[in-house]
Amino acid sequence: MILTVTLNTALDVTYRVPALRPHTSHRVTDVRERPGGKGLNVARVLAALGHEVTVTGFVGGATGRVVQERLTGTAGVSDALLPVTGATRRTIAVVDARTGDTTQLNEPGPVITPAEWSAFQEAYEGLLAGADAVALCGSLPPGVPVGAYAVLVRTARAAGVPVLLDTSGEALRRGVAARPDIIKPNADELAELTGSHEPLRATQDARRRGARSVVASLGADGLTAATPEGRWRATPPARVSGNPTGAGDSASAGLLSGLVERLPWPDRLARAVALSAATVLSPTAGEFERQAYEQLLNRITVTGEATAA
Amino acid sequence: MILTVTLNTALDVTYRVPALRPHTSHRVTDVRERPGGKGLNVARVLAALGHEVTVTGFVGGATGRVVQERLTGTAGVSDALLPVTGATRRTIAVVDARTGDTTQLNEPGPVITPAEWSAFQEAYEGLLAGADAVALCGSLPPGVPVGAYAVLVRTARAAGVPVLLDTSGEALRRGVAARPDIIKPNADELAELTGSHEPLRATQDARRRGARSVVASLGADGLTAATPEGRWRATPPARVSGNPTGAGDSASAGLLSGLVERLPWPDRLARAVALSAATVLSPTAGEFERQAYEQLLNRITVTGEATAA
Repeated sequence: MILTVTLNTALDVTYRVPALRPHTSHRVTDVRERPGGKGLNVARVLAALGHEVTVTGFVGGATGRVVQERLTGTAGVSDALLPVTGATRRTIAVVDARTGDTTQLNEPGPVITPAEWSAFQEAYEGLLAGADAVALCGSLPPGVPVGAYAVLVRTARAAGVPVLLDTSGEALRRGVAARPDIIKPNADELAELTGSHEPLRATQDARRRGARSVVASLGADGLTAATPEGRWRATPPARVSGNPTGAGDSASAGLLSGLVERLPWPDRLARAVALSAATVLSPTAGEFERQAYEQLLNRITVTGEATAA
Repeated sequence: MILTVTLNTALDVTYRVPALRPHTSHRVTDVRERPGGKGLNVARVLAALGHEVTVTGFVGGATGRVVQERLTGTAGVSDALLPVTGATRRTIAVVDARTGDTTQLNEPGPVITPAEWSAFQEAYEGLLAGADAVALCGSLPPGVPVGAYAVLVRTARAAGVPVLLDTSGEALRRGVAARPDIIKPNADELAELTGSHEPLRATQDARRRGARSVVASLGADGLTAATPEGRWRATPPARVSGNPTGAGDSASAGLLSGLVERLPWPDRLARAVALSAATVLSPTAGEFERQAYEQLLNRITVTGEATAA
């Protein structure tokens, strides 16, 4: 089983409006809803790849009930979310039908009490006992200490469970110091962590800070990885255009499934890039096109070299 | 008991953002939710005035559950909403904290099936048996025939229950032809119905079309009424400024409570204008300031004359 942690789960709502004009009234012509938060996105892709996944994190209020109802209908995903008093946040993406541009409104998320955070840590330790790998994903809701991911990384390492960390800012900085197996920053997150905009230097610096392997997203140009086994760069056959929502989460799912299946790094990276591109190509935000994924998988260019054994 | 009908109930959500900038991402700093739709607003004010109120209309989905949970906590309001398969709509008001301006996003509401509309008409007829008056309020959800209010007005008249109609466009035009006791259009709705922007002419025309009494809102200038008992104009002591959300619904509650209490028209109009102004003055959208209401009540100027008996 692969465990994914989403401390700040969400209901992702997409509104389509004919044209967004501030300070006027709009008729929403189309409403879509799906469970969100990075860890839930990673879980869906892992399940689609045939892995058994358990999701945990916090869920509360009426919006939390909707998230759980929807998850129940997702094959291969087991719900181990912890109920809290606060309400799960909504994120609203308002798509302007005229231009295709999106305006995003993100609720802050529930305030987590110290007792809820303690209860989570205990439940998490129990879930790790059955896990082959764990992904720690996304932002921290209010009330959770900024060093939360450092704590969760250490618990996973103590349990011998490989851990992927995908977050940003101070939560990433503290989490990296606890020595996660993989971090998966995008260019901005990596630059914020290391102070360097140069990928080679920045990935080396992030490894020195504690990350065993660093897989940095280069957006449409693929991924670059610095690992104890070697350095690689994985590039899609052509730039794909579409909706990048969830592309990073699909890459995380690719890396994690490859780790659990003990694939060599170049194969993990090819899978991550193919899944990511197939997500951008999907008409539904955050889902991947299976056929595109299978066609892309053998067309990813991976260059680099393994470290001498 | 006073019955209020809200065919298109809503959960009114208010978001505060530091500054709304289209095509960017926003952190929502404050989230408020309350049951909405004009008939529910009218019911809350009637209950605050000490009347027993029953609310009916359609409710469905996760958002509908939240609306019902919140109504259960409102003293004096009984829930006779009919469950439907579709989901109750949300309305999102995005308040720009910098300017105070509001950008409104309104979901369309559930699609009502012919069977659900039939079931409603039957339930409505049953509820009328115990009603002293009925208010038919707001827009029609998809699937409900445009002549719906005409049908509901006729049923109320057949049951001998006085009926106030507050809607707009074609639903108002058709409803008026069925001869409601009171309509309460604002200046735009009245002009759309009658083709005239001149209040005296327009209210007379609306009466010729079938409304027994027409109470037209003049915004901050109060109300003007054309009734079989006479013509009046009711004006607040000074223009009040604040949030006009729900001010019209408070006026409807004033008119309806005055009708049930058999107050003379000038007293009904004074109450409606005082409630309306006290709603604009309230810091919470759609609620009225009780103290302001009581202070205003004796300071409303009502001019006009009764028809010779």
